[in-house]
Amino acid sequence: MTGATGLVRTAVQAGVSVCFANPGTTELDIVRAFDETPGARAILCLFEGVATGAADGYARMTDVPGMTLLHLGAGLGNGVANLHNARKARSRVVNIVGDHDVDHIPHNSPLTSDIQGIARPVSDWVRTADSTEDVSADIAAAIEAVIGPAGGVATLVAPADILRSEGGGPTAVLRENGRAPVFGDVAAVADALGAGPEVALLLSGRALTQDGLVAGARIAEATGCALMHDSSSRIERGAGLPNIHGFPGTAAAAAEHLPAIRAVVLAGASPPVTFFKWPGEPSSRLPKGVDILTLATPEQDAVPALLAVADAVGAGQAITRTVALDVPSPPTGELSVESAGRAIAAALPEGAIVADESITSGGPFNAHSRACPRHTRLSTGGGSIGWALPQATGAAVACPDRPVIALSGDGGAMYTIQALWTQAREGLNVTSIIWANREYAILRGSLRRFGVDPIDGASASLTDLRSPNIDWVQLARSMGVPGSRPETAEDTYDAIARAIAEPGPHLIEVVV
Amino acid sequence: MTGATGLVRTAVQAGVSVCFANPGTTELDIVRAFDETPGARAILCLFEGVATGAADGYARMTDVPGMTLLHLGAGLGNGVANLHNARKARSRVVNIVGDHDVDHIPHNSPLTSDIQGIARPVSDWVRTADSTEDVSADIAAAIEAVIGPAGGVATLVAPADILRSEGGGPTAVLRENGRAPVFGDVAAVADALGAGPEVALLLSGRALTQDGLVAGARIAEATGCALMHDSSSRIERGAGLPNIHGFPGTAAAAAEHLPAIRAVVLAGASPPVTFFKWPGEPSSRLPKGVDILTLATPEQDAVPALLAVADAVGAGQAITRTVALDVPSPPTGELSVESAGRAIAAALPEGAIVADESITSGGPFNAHSRACPRHTRLSTGGGSIGWALPQATGAAVACPDRPVIALSGDGGAMYTIQALWTQAREGLNVTSIIWANREYAILRGSLRRFGVDPIDGASASLTDLRSPNIDWVQLARSMGVPGSRPETAEDTYDAIARAIAEPGPHLIEVVV
Repeated sequence: MTGATGLVRTAVQAGVSVCFANPGTTELDIVRAFDETPGARAILCLFEGVATGAADGYARMTDVPGMTLLHLGAGLGNGVANLHNARKARSRVVNIVGDHDVDHIPHNSPLTSDIQGIARPVSDWVRTADSTEDVSADIAAAIEAVIGPAGGVATLVAPADILRSEGGGPTAVLRENGRAPVFGDVAAVADALGAGPEVALLLSGRALTQDGLVAGARIAEATGCALMHDSSSRIERGAGLPNIHGFPGTAAAAAEHLPAIRAVVLAGASPPVTFFKWPGEPSSRLPKGVDILTLATPEQDAVPALLAVADAVGAGQAITRTVALDVPSPPTGELSVESAGRAIAAALPEGAIVADESITSGGPFNAHSRACPRHTRLSTGGGSIGWALPQATGAAVACPDRPVIALSGDGGAMYTIQALWTQAREGLNVTSIIWANREYAILRGSLRRFGVDPIDGASASLTDLRSPNIDWVQLARSMGVPGSRPETAEDTYDAIARAIAEPGPHLIEVVV
Repeated sequence: MTGATGLVRTAVQAGVSVCFANPGTTELDIVRAFDETPGARAILCLFEGVATGAADGYARMTDVPGMTLLHLGAGLGNGVANLHNARKARSRVVNIVGDHDVDHIPHNSPLTSDIQGIARPVSDWVRTADSTEDVSADIAAAIEAVIGPAGGVATLVAPADILRSEGGGPTAVLRENGRAPVFGDVAAVADALGAGPEVALLLSGRALTQDGLVAGARIAEATGCALMHDSSSRIERGAGLPNIHGFPGTAAAAAEHLPAIRAVVLAGASPPVTFFKWPGEPSSRLPKGVDILTLATPEQDAVPALLAVADAVGAGQAITRTVALDVPSPPTGELSVESAGRAIAAALPEGAIVADESITSGGPFNAHSRACPRHTRLSTGGGSIGWALPQATGAAVACPDRPVIALSGDGGAMYTIQALWTQAREGLNVTSIIWANREYAILRGSLRRFGVDPIDGASASLTDLRSPNIDWVQLARSMGVPGSRPETAEDTYDAIARAIAEPGPHLIEVVV
């Protein structure tokens, strides 16, 4: 057995069987190993940022690591932005990156580069394989590095001759079953929660699974604390789930909306900070004087931590305050961010997965979908754009029976537009809704905030996506994805409902 | 004056005035500085790999550094692959990468990352600005780091508050005028060249400018040495230039075609090595026992080195053996790699710039264009695909009066297809010819070489670009670029001739 076959068998036997791949010459033995390994599924992506984003989406929906196969440092480089998102989301991704034959590397041929150097800023674990016998133990270690509660990105660099040579064999992946969950001081948290409405219980990461949400709601009902969530990689939403609100986006907003708050308990959340720093404003989103208690960091076991706190505060098993189903009626009239957001919410089927990178266009959909049938919302985690279409691709591979909706600005969608091709090839049930405001609207908003008025010159040209306008319908069709550009709110609703009902991918351009 | 304005003025005053940009919030003060700086030209790219590839192409055609503006670590990451190409080509690129406000970085907000870590594997020079007063000296140092003969990639990371604050001012860039050129032992090289046909004079890098080629030809005519070139970032080709051939691609081919060779003199070239290592074959492309003499490394002054050797061997000023004009007639009949390559050569106008990333489809065009009117050929340098369309974009900005032709495989073109939009917006005279063989043909070739027959399963699906076929004409039109898909050799010739004659970008899909 080659090293490559031992590696692939190790991964597949550990359940890591889906690989989003863009291989080159140095990875061909891994490609051949997929052929020889029952249960392996290799999916071609035409750009590495699609592969890494899809692996992330697959992992978020399965909790099984998504695997990628990337070509040397340059291919890994193309995957960096979505690995950044995966890592910040504490998702689980395992990258396999080929390298030249060991004795070819010192010759510094054109494609030779510092692969570990490129991997390190976006990986929690990096290793270069140094023997055919051990390469399956290396991939086992990579998987072990990310299957715990902390998740993360592991990158294994494997020279081609080590993969090609005979002498490989599978290695069993060790799981930490039975390991005691790790989290903070439950008694201290329970004690602090005695202050009731003066405390916010802030959930993020794995605390926003159904189990985490229900545990948090039990605590809130027992103590009177405010149950809140912070920007998260994945959240379960909709009817029947606990009532929970997002933590305000600035310290000033938090002081206004949560005047009683004196302490925040973090459950899978980091201390809340702003995305960017604005001149004269603080980085922290907590009003001054608010204490922080850490029940579980994003890397720790937030769900058992919440369950332990629920016990400690004597919470009941049932929760009473849940979201009641309230679906907006389909909108009519003019197409706008508001009416289109309502159209998406009105059409949202139970069990939908929404990969939401709407950025400036996201508000109305979020508000209208709050009490829709239960669904899963994914968001970037790391803020690097070009995330939604790849993410939706991976989520649809993970959950072929659930409708997947990608919401993306036109600016963001262009970074990884090649995802559409993989959606078409694999027949994935993804409806991509492109907010075509034809500008980098978030940058125009920032320029206005900086006092730039009027926006002209380079400030205009570097934030404007007109001249030429992108024809998203034609772009989708060029990669085999049916597209449409509805012109009214009712047509938008119809187009979304039809796209969701029909198998395979669709793209809807919403010009706003 | 803000730090950003001081930075931009410093660059523009040094002649570094064209910036290929994909800014985000942290770079908006640089955007505003472009508005305030006469002579600055900022060009929007919708993906950072387009920006870095275009900066490289601009630099190759002007010898002036191409500037980029990239958003944080994620944006820089998207530019890594074409920065790899630029660096290997010893091109000149200066990246400006914004970062968060200095006091926001420790808060680890979503987009925070190790920007220097991402920069280092693809940069020869990296610095993070630490004061508004010094940020213009930092960009001056970045420019100084790459304007010498070695070229290279310099990356300046600049926190937003340092850019935003008042207290900046321009800094003069120091040029090394009058510095003595640096190269190897001329007397030793002249002595070795006494062996005549037993020596190959191997030119690459800046030695393949007209001056370098003529100096090399003078040496060859005086000594009888073999005048050869190696894969290069830029070469002047065609009628009136010296006769020169490429060095064979393997040691076995070199032994066959150059049986007399005992030594190689490197002038701007590295020791020739294979792209990849094949099992049982050597990395070096030199037959065993061939000595290497280094006249000039790729980082040294190859042209003055060649001129010094020409003097030392008593070479005449004139050269007698030049390429005589011999343009192929336009082809007729079936469309194929051969007939399409001939069609491009037949249509090639004097002064054309050809960014050639044909890979497996490049042979016929290269053979047919050898004696065409004089033109410039660019090739990747680093072998990372997704290079041709961005490169052509930058070359067309640099040389608006010269026709630019991008040759790309369909696989490669998909990585950075967003380049078409910038070509349309800027009205650039680029004709992109896409070899649509609908597979990663080079990988299929490698699989066959490894004995995989038939190619099926993952080996087939991961190397096949069918299902769905990409409609390149529609894809181009979606971004405002007129496209065509000729079906015969004569129609291909006509389409190319028409595309070159008409202003603005065009795309021609050649299904082969």
